Amino acid sequence: MDSDEIRAVAAGLDLDDLADFVQSLPDTLIDETLAGMEQQERHRLEQVLSYDEESAGGLMNLDAVTVRADVSLDVVLRYLRLRGDLPPHTDHLIVVDRHDRYCGVLSLRSLLTHPAEQPVAAVMDIDYEPINVKLSDAEVVRRFEDRNLVSAPVVDDHHRLLGRITVDDVFDVMREDAEQAVMSMAGLDQDDDIFSPVVKSSRKRAVWLGVNLLTAFLASWVIGQFEGALDQVVALAILMPVVASMGGIAGSQTLTLVIRGQALGQVSRTNTPWLLRKEIMVGLLNGLLWAVVVAAVAWLWFGDPQIPLVIAAATVINLLAAATAGVVIPMILRSLGVDPALAGGVILTTVTDVVGFVAFLGLATLYLID
Amino acid sequence: MDSDEIRAVAAGLDLDDLADFVQSLPDTLIDETLAGMEQQERHRLEQVLSYDEESAGGLMNLDAVTVRADVSLDVVLRYLRLRGDLPPHTDHLIVVDRHDRYCGVLSLRSLLTHPAEQPVAAVMDIDYEPINVKLSDAEVVRRFEDRNLVSAPVVDDHHRLLGRITVDDVFDVMREDAEQAVMSMAGLDQDDDIFSPVVKSSRKRAVWLGVNLLTAFLASWVIGQFEGALDQVVALAILMPVVASMGGIAGSQTLTLVIRGQALGQVSRTNTPWLLRKEIMVGLLNGLLWAVVVAAVAWLWFGDPQIPLVIAAATVINLLAAATAGVVIPMILRSLGVDPALAGGVILTTVTDVVGFVAFLGLATLYLID
Repeated sequence: MDSDEIRAVAAGLDLDDLADFVQSLPDTLIDETLAGMEQQERHRLEQVLSYDEESAGGLMNLDAVTVRADVSLDVVLRYLRLRGDLPPHTDHLIVVDRHDRYCGVLSLRSLLTHPAEQPVAAVMDIDYEPINVKLSDAEVVRRFEDRNLVSAPVVDDHHRLLGRITVDDVFDVMREDAEQAVMSMAGLDQDDDIFSPVVKSSRKRAVWLGVNLLTAFLASWVIGQFEGALDQVVALAILMPVVASMGGIAGSQTLTLVIRGQALGQVSRTNTPWLLRKEIMVGLLNGLLWAVVVAAVAWLWFGDPQIPLVIAAATVINLLAAATAGVVIPMILRSLGVDPALAGGVILTTVTDVVGFVAFLGLATLYLID
Repeated sequence: MDSDEIRAVAAGLDLDDLADFVQSLPDTLIDETLAGMEQQERHRLEQVLSYDEESAGGLMNLDAVTVRADVSLDVVLRYLRLRGDLPPHTDHLIVVDRHDRYCGVLSLRSLLTHPAEQPVAAVMDIDYEPINVKLSDAEVVRRFEDRNLVSAPVVDDHHRLLGRITVDDVFDVMREDAEQAVMSMAGLDQDDDIFSPVVKSSRKRAVWLGVNLLTAFLASWVIGQFEGALDQVVALAILMPVVASMGGIAGSQTLTLVIRGQALGQVSRTNTPWLLRKEIMVGLLNGLLWAVVVAAVAWLWFGDPQIPLVIAAATVINLLAAATAGVVIPMILRSLGVDPALAGGVILTTVTDVVGFVAFLGLATLYLID
């Protein structure tokens, strides 16, 4: 695309979407595009571009319709008729003073249902809390959800009105967040899609495979420490993936719940000890239950009465480790500022693989091998 | 809760949320609750309860404000002032004929910006498509997203107006869907949360662990078929998890992309062959790349020049199988009406475990064992 084509695309976009679009262009094209715009439009766009894309400022639009508190509803009605149109998703007009400071909102609902001779001040909602321009987009989404908003005014630290955010932009953020949660668990980034070219896809996914290879070799190295046991009892090699796999699944369940609890604000420092105890109890119950099943199958399969005892003990140990890792790993990652959805899974399965192999092969070395 | 308490809770809810709430109660309590309500309210609630919870009917509210096409805007304005209030998220009034058939919408925007003497018919939007009461909630969400709606009228097959859906309910569906996507990948159901009691949590998660145990034993059985090779070359037991693990990760990447593509409507029968070829190419490139690394490490570790060749070949084979399974499994599950996000992962890793072990241990049996 050259800058003319970009301007043609840009002409059809809302200012906030335009800002997102422009930010995705190479720097030289941004300059060219800005240079070709009308001065007023350019000034407005530059203003939106100056905010972090993932803040309220990056989401806002500058098309708020404002009124003063001291006029009557009748004047507002005549003003709107004169104006001839309202921006999409206008569910209220924003009341400001003459310094452009936010005073409240006048919902179209109130405007339409109150006597026209009343002043705006008498019917406006002064408790409608505006959004600070620096609020994170995740917080903006939460506020729209909690309060069922259609639009909300955006203000700076001095309560000066800067613009407004509408529900359609909040939709976009929700959709992206939801996708990112799923994609990042597979080590994919959000721009990956099924239409990306082969080489680009391969390169992006190779990184994650490389990280996994490191952890896989770590597990192999652990197994290698028990070469003697494996050499003597081939059943150990056959059964060892079962212990590791049960730990991986149980750990992922805990991890997923804790990550979700973090996102919903349900998990905090104060209830972590309680949560850890609870998950360890769940791990113990499921560990005991499935240890019996695993031991029974191993006994039927190999006849030997000692292998079942060893694999049962290793299963319980690994499920307890999985529960602990599922709670502790996302806590640590979060306090380090790393997204637990991205790195949590790979670290967790490394822990459950290592603990699973050490417990199973270690106990076997102690009790089965002469 | 007894039915009095339930009615107290119910009094604070919108009709659609109330319907959701009532559906979560035991049958005897539903009857008691309905019996204690005023007749009109009960009739309205029963009407909403009669629709599938996951359809437009289950999402709708009955608080639509309707007007006739032949009155003037001025009459509408006076009617609203007389009415005294509008339901939340009213961005338009719904225009119906005298048989309550849907004719179009009159946006508050148009109502406020057109001359008051014009008739509703002259300014109403007749292209605003209503939602059929039987439409799935997923389709409702998509339509709200695509068209940036705040509310939409709901009609029956004869275009009779039944109610309306508002953006806050669409938010709830989106949030639930997003959570379900993440939770179901770990075999958790949506009601699972960190505050569930230990026994309830254990029981719910045990099922998924049991499913996984079956697949783990299948993998063990496959390994057991190569007991002879494992008995002779202990390095095979040490290295075999690497091949299975690389396949599992690569397959999950493809699976996640395809499931997302399905959700976005990007994957269809027509582009499946193309997608399969592309993913196989990605699998081949990454397979070759990491096969070299894996082989180099195996060579440094065990000295033997044949093990590296076998593990490299097995890695490439498993990554090709992973790419194929990642595309084919969600396609098949979807055509069977099973949610690929729920069952896809466990089936995929079963495939990559089995193929990984068979390829690695099988090739070793052919080329390494006398």
